Amino acid sequence: MLIVQKYGGTSVGGLDRIESVAGRVAKAKRDGNSLVVVVSAMSGETNKLVGYAQHFSKTPAKREMDMLLSSGERVTAALLSIALQEMGIDAVGMTGRQAGILTDINHTYARIESIDTTTIKRELDSGKVVVVAGFQGINTTGQVTTLGRGGSDLSAVAIAGALDADVCEIYSDVDGIYTTDPRIEPKAKKMDFISYDEMLELASLGAKVLQNRSVELAKKLSVKIVAKSSFSDAEGTVISKESEEMEEVLVSGIALDKNQARVTLREVMDRPGIAAEIFTSLADEQINVDMIIQNASTDGTTNLGFTIPSSELERAREVIANFSHDYGAVDYDEGVCKVSVVGVGMKSHSGVAAKAFSILAKNNINIEMISTSEIKVSMIIDEKYGELAVRTLHSVYDLDS
Amino acid sequence: MLIVQKYGGTSVGGLDRIESVAGRVAKAKRDGNSLVVVVSAMSGETNKLVGYAQHFSKTPAKREMDMLLSSGERVTAALLSIALQEMGIDAVGMTGRQAGILTDINHTYARIESIDTTTIKRELDSGKVVVVAGFQGINTTGQVTTLGRGGSDLSAVAIAGALDADVCEIYSDVDGIYTTDPRIEPKAKKMDFISYDEMLELASLGAKVLQNRSVELAKKLSVKIVAKSSFSDAEGTVISKESEEMEEVLVSGIALDKNQARVTLREVMDRPGIAAEIFTSLADEQINVDMIIQNASTDGTTNLGFTIPSSELERAREVIANFSHDYGAVDYDEGVCKVSVVGVGMKSHSGVAAKAFSILAKNNINIEMISTSEIKVSMIIDEKYGELAVRTLHSVYDLDS
Repeated sequence: MLIVQKYGGTSVGGLDRIESVAGRVAKAKRDGNSLVVVVSAMSGETNKLVGYAQHFSKTPAKREMDMLLSSGERVTAALLSIALQEMGIDAVGMTGRQAGILTDINHTYARIESIDTTTIKRELDSGKVVVVAGFQGINTTGQVTTLGRGGSDLSAVAIAGALDADVCEIYSDVDGIYTTDPRIEPKAKKMDFISYDEMLELASLGAKVLQNRSVELAKKLSVKIVAKSSFSDAEGTVISKESEEMEEVLVSGIALDKNQARVTLREVMDRPGIAAEIFTSLADEQINVDMIIQNASTDGTTNLGFTIPSSELERAREVIANFSHDYGAVDYDEGVCKVSVVGVGMKSHSGVAAKAFSILAKNNINIEMISTSEIKVSMIIDEKYGELAVRTLHSVYDLDS
Repeated sequence: MLIVQKYGGTSVGGLDRIESVAGRVAKAKRDGNSLVVVVSAMSGETNKLVGYAQHFSKTPAKREMDMLLSSGERVTAALLSIALQEMGIDAVGMTGRQAGILTDINHTYARIESIDTTTIKRELDSGKVVVVAGFQGINTTGQVTTLGRGGSDLSAVAIAGALDADVCEIYSDVDGIYTTDPRIEPKAKKMDFISYDEMLELASLGAKVLQNRSVELAKKLSVKIVAKSSFSDAEGTVISKESEEMEEVLVSGIALDKNQARVTLREVMDRPGIAAEIFTSLADEQINVDMIIQNASTDGTTNLGFTIPSSELERAREVIANFSHDYGAVDYDEGVCKVSVVGVGMKSHSGVAAKAFSILAKNNINIEMISTSEIKVSMIIDEKYGELAVRTLHSVYDLDS
């Protein structure tokens, strides 16, 4: 098999951990596999370097930040290569540039545009384990770029896609994706399989494991991901295309997102283009609007409600203060959270949403906003009921057993 | 003026130090100069990374060591650029690759083959301060290479040569070159000028300031160096071509090298080619032979004496044990040191050497070996008299005043 493995910061957090990862890579190689290994910076390194830069500037130049931050992954790649060589495994370390990763020009959050796999393939063909510094590439003018936080996952998935690898194993300190956050519901179980779309909807459950951008890319490139722990030999969770097996499962997981704030604009003049104006202004300020609800108009005005991450509320206030068009009043509510029920089985089973609404009602939990998709029901509720809602839903969809 | 500045490890040893260097660079820029600044890794970083690698292997692959070690200079270059930008100075950080530094293929001790100054010149022309990560380049196959310890000096001198800069300022924590080691003779004085050749002969006096390889390169490229301290505003020492001014000074400095061992092969069969064989064998093992003395042959055999660095004595013993040709006996003496009197003025003044011999004799210091060049007299003496010899010579050549 051709396997791409990616080891995150805690997996390579110290010299002993790098040694352990080398052992894992060596075993996979000796089992007859071809291997590309993508590594993050040792945990703490990137934050240390960011701290250094912030000593000098609140807004350090992004180009220089990329030059700075890309150094951490190079160190890990070199050290892991050396550790492998010492174990008798022929290994070669590569920077993002050497691995052929070409990005666009956007420093600190570049997108991978293409991967020239010539060098990687040549080294694989000669029997070497290729160790690649994750999180980085170069753009067409030869500048070093980085892919944003969690960028090593992107590097791994993109390389797996470009090489048409059999699997992309993403290693962290968590052994997979759970049906809900085990800190909220100890009965949460690790899933064996989950579809890309479910994973995207359950983003908060996977936050520590892999970032949504890499799931999106994996879906686009049809890369099969296995999320595993580098601290155990547990099986992990497969993230792949929907299968018949998956569709038998009604609900896969329950996610809770407490980083939510609700904004309600009341008595907005109901004329065409108003919503577009408002949300364009917010988008221009990189404010991520999640759920949007507009009530039917009665007296020529309407109420427009939407949610945004709490951390973006201050900026949203500024944008709204500058709106040129008429509205009666605006409410902000930081005391809300979003509970989501996710599962591909919902496509072919009716009544999933109704079941959620009725069980929450039975527990006297008021639903303030609702948004649904083919595989998801999300509800905005009072923040203090978040954990209760998760446990209640986890139980009612038989995820406890 | 077009100035290349190079800041060594202690000069950029912490965030406060980098800030201080940024202030110095900013001032030079505001004074109207064009500036390329070459930086080393923060002091301790390179040793830390070497230690990491040695955790895994006693003999880590050189290619991966270069990938590892080159990261330290990138960090400093990025941080200094950010610090300068914050001070309102337009600065751009560059890796060795981006600065156009092309080397041969020898990892960990590569030689600079050429510098493509296109990018540096373009940035200088647009008014930017160019900050370059020292110690590194790439070879023709795109691999990252490093230039060996002290390699940032080489980067700076090579860039200064390629740009035809007015001066290359090498900053360290020492404010110049002294007439002798001030720890041995407190009356030692800082020199204002010294020629390349004198500097090369006084290597041990400049060891903490700049490496001989960079002095050789500076001589070859006619780059004027100023060795200065980044911790003070003292003037520093100019290292350049000989000038008439210099030749008026009889003796520039006195150097002491305690890292010396003497080897004497007795009763070597005196036939053509023997010396060549012996020294070729030693050179093949990278043993640096310094002084060589062969006595006139009397009975068809000769005594062959030479000195090598003490640290290479063990390897020399092995080489000599394997000599195929006849000799009577071999002596090794680690208890010796080399005292050198250096000055371009010696070219045009006779009696300099005689003065050294007689003052040492007057102090009952026996001279075991002598080697002279146009601008140097070196003497091998008993190690315990080293400091006394230095102080005596420093005084007799009027360097104390």
